[in-house]
Amino acid sequence: VLIVELIAQKQRGESLTAEQIEYLIQGFTRGDVPDYQMSALLMAIYFRGVTDQEGRLFLNSMIRSGKRLNLSAIPGTKVDKHSTGGVGDKTSLIIAPVLAVAGVPVPMISGRGLGHTGGTLDKLESIPGFYVHLSDEEFERILKQTGCAFGAQTTELVPADRKLYALRDVTATVSIPPLIAASILSKKIAEGTNALVMDVKVGEGGFLRDQNEAEELAKMLVRWSAEENVETIAFGTNMDKPLGKAAGNGPEVKECLDILKTGQGDAQLIALSRALGAGMLMLGGKSQDLPSGEKLFDEILDSGAGFEKFKEIAIAQGANPFALDHYEQVSVPKFKHEFFANSSGYLTRVHPQEIGWALVDLGAGRYQSVDTVDHTAGIIFEKQQGDPVKAGDLLATACWSTPRNEKAALSRFEKAMVVGEHKAEDKPLLMFRCDKSGLTKLI
Amino acid sequence: VLIVELIAQKQRGESLTAEQIEYLIQGFTRGDVPDYQMSALLMAIYFRGVTDQEGRLFLNSMIRSGKRLNLSAIPGTKVDKHSTGGVGDKTSLIIAPVLAVAGVPVPMISGRGLGHTGGTLDKLESIPGFYVHLSDEEFERILKQTGCAFGAQTTELVPADRKLYALRDVTATVSIPPLIAASILSKKIAEGTNALVMDVKVGEGGFLRDQNEAEELAKMLVRWSAEENVETIAFGTNMDKPLGKAAGNGPEVKECLDILKTGQGDAQLIALSRALGAGMLMLGGKSQDLPSGEKLFDEILDSGAGFEKFKEIAIAQGANPFALDHYEQVSVPKFKHEFFANSSGYLTRVHPQEIGWALVDLGAGRYQSVDTVDHTAGIIFEKQQGDPVKAGDLLATACWSTPRNEKAALSRFEKAMVVGEHKAEDKPLLMFRCDKSGLTKLI
Repeated sequence: VLIVELIAQKQRGESLTAEQIEYLIQGFTRGDVPDYQMSALLMAIYFRGVTDQEGRLFLNSMIRSGKRLNLSAIPGTKVDKHSTGGVGDKTSLIIAPVLAVAGVPVPMISGRGLGHTGGTLDKLESIPGFYVHLSDEEFERILKQTGCAFGAQTTELVPADRKLYALRDVTATVSIPPLIAASILSKKIAEGTNALVMDVKVGEGGFLRDQNEAEELAKMLVRWSAEENVETIAFGTNMDKPLGKAAGNGPEVKECLDILKTGQGDAQLIALSRALGAGMLMLGGKSQDLPSGEKLFDEILDSGAGFEKFKEIAIAQGANPFALDHYEQVSVPKFKHEFFANSSGYLTRVHPQEIGWALVDLGAGRYQSVDTVDHTAGIIFEKQQGDPVKAGDLLATACWSTPRNEKAALSRFEKAMVVGEHKAEDKPLLMFRCDKSGLTKLI
Repeated sequence: VLIVELIAQKQRGESLTAEQIEYLIQGFTRGDVPDYQMSALLMAIYFRGVTDQEGRLFLNSMIRSGKRLNLSAIPGTKVDKHSTGGVGDKTSLIIAPVLAVAGVPVPMISGRGLGHTGGTLDKLESIPGFYVHLSDEEFERILKQTGCAFGAQTTELVPADRKLYALRDVTATVSIPPLIAASILSKKIAEGTNALVMDVKVGEGGFLRDQNEAEELAKMLVRWSAEENVETIAFGTNMDKPLGKAAGNGPEVKECLDILKTGQGDAQLIALSRALGAGMLMLGGKSQDLPSGEKLFDEILDSGAGFEKFKEIAIAQGANPFALDHYEQVSVPKFKHEFFANSSGYLTRVHPQEIGWALVDLGAGRYQSVDTVDHTAGIIFEKQQGDPVKAGDLLATACWSTPRNEKAALSRFEKAMVVGEHKAEDKPLLMFRCDKSGLTKLI
């Protein structure tokens, strides 16, 4: 097979066959298909697209590129949750322990911050001692023991995806919906989950801005995973502003621990956690429908049992027990900067992507995968998009410990928060839901 | 600068600035811009195109990537000739010595076979001892001494193009007209020629199939080179069948030496050499117009002086003098295969691209740049496209010495020569001419 011929084939808009896709994916994983040819092919796919069948072939070849975990030794329906990525998007930390309390095993394999978006692994590592690079055996043991485990993708789990994703990230070929679906599902199917709740972010702070594209992705995720006997519910949710009161690893963990302890906190963050959690409870057989799932979710959250469960999981993964009880004393930033309103009116916009890139500048995220992260870096919002403000009001506080590009970061934060005369349109959080019975628009 | 941002910019269809293109080209040449990002950018350019201005910026940055020869010590207007590549396309070997006889210095820097097309360097190397990897000093000395030198692109001459071309070749991004123009002109301008005649091949055997695209390329070549004080005449010529009676390195040299010796040979091959040569004679100040240039060309060709000049150049480049006088005894193939007509009618089609790929299979070309070439491998046509044939007539003879994929080659040759009831449409050889006064359609 001449790889250049396969590139030309896709360039002309023709489909690739099962054999060709298998050759490309396994060859790329082994190193026989060089990066420069794969990136040319990816760019041709960006412009020409792939058919539903080609997408599923990519998914199948990617799963076959590595090993597949078998969690059947753990009783119950294992349900994972995944988000396409946003700013301040921390629902996993709230949902996973609540679900574990309810008796639904949550085998959660997460990623790191990517571009302007945060990653669950970086957030967890802001807790002293928290270890995420679990072996398969450790992952399974902790999952069995606590009802949840937070792992990182091992080198054996879908190596094709690791390599492909790294290449897509640096070649502007991330936003190809069928390859996003294949990337997500290959990992979820290989990790051995039985069911999945997807949070498909739509808007300026996510990777997809167009609702139609998000709906297509959601439908693909539901349809393709069903073929692998993984039932999926996908929610389309708004990502036009940062989620919750904090963004940045340490500050976000703090926000979550407070909610898990008290059941109180940012209404939208709790509402989204509740909606996604209810889907997981239903898939896990713990509730008949979504409303009863939401009720059960609230009961557990209000009881504070989620906090104890999170501690249990964290300690099983090496976290210092005292760090969890006294978290506010653990992740203390050395520097702070406060942002005030220059005029009265409304906090019209909090641009999430700008906030995300400012966080990267501040050290909460990475320019390159080798960069280290400042776990104390972040921003805490005192006002939310849409709130009325008076001149001189404190809008937000940025915090960090390691001097890097904080000047650039602060200027980006400043620009990202727009005070104006008009309250911006308040878009509903939940936009659509897609499950085996089809897609339901929620707005 | 984040390279991925530049890729995304072009992906959205936005133009790149002078600084961005300079950064990309010099960075790529140095190795700071990795292949996998450049190939993604090239594929985005394939789909989005580049503006005329961007194309010229690519050209300028590419010229700046290496050193620029200064041939001003050699008196007269130096005129080079270049073809976009075809099958059996051997006019350089005929034209260059004729021009040198006329007193027009021809600084010819050529390439190797690419894909299904042949390359002048490979042809010359079928002559025992012929050395093409001349240093700049050797090149200039031989050019001064004989009136012509056949060189290969040195590592210092437009290194950006060497690297970029190799990458485009394996990523299906060769056929981007402005980058073809930038690739050709960067080398021609850096080699120090004062004028240029271009043979832009149109049809199945070339890289461009569409006449409009070829005309656009011709106009670009004329316009861009004028800005660098290089006057160019570009001819659009038909490449819907192999040119001349032989294809393959040794067989083509044999065909050319016969024509140079006797002035007799394939009418189309001589006609094309005459047309291109006349353009060069005019640019070199040896004729007032194209018709008088054609007359002068014929006079020299008929005199046999071109053969003596070719010998002189070849000997200056290390060729064995006896090998030129007894060329038919030098490049003797070990194996032969004859193709006969199965039915009577016409030789309707001789598909040049199939012939070209069959030559690669046979060892006359390369699958990969490291492959060695069998200089005796080729095909000699006894019948040309459009000729009437009778069942049993000899159509062509394939020849080679090193057993490789001759089975595949012979089957490709067989398929490429189609005998049918109808004579195919005979397309005129010269399709258009483009010079500083504009484009003239010749058909």
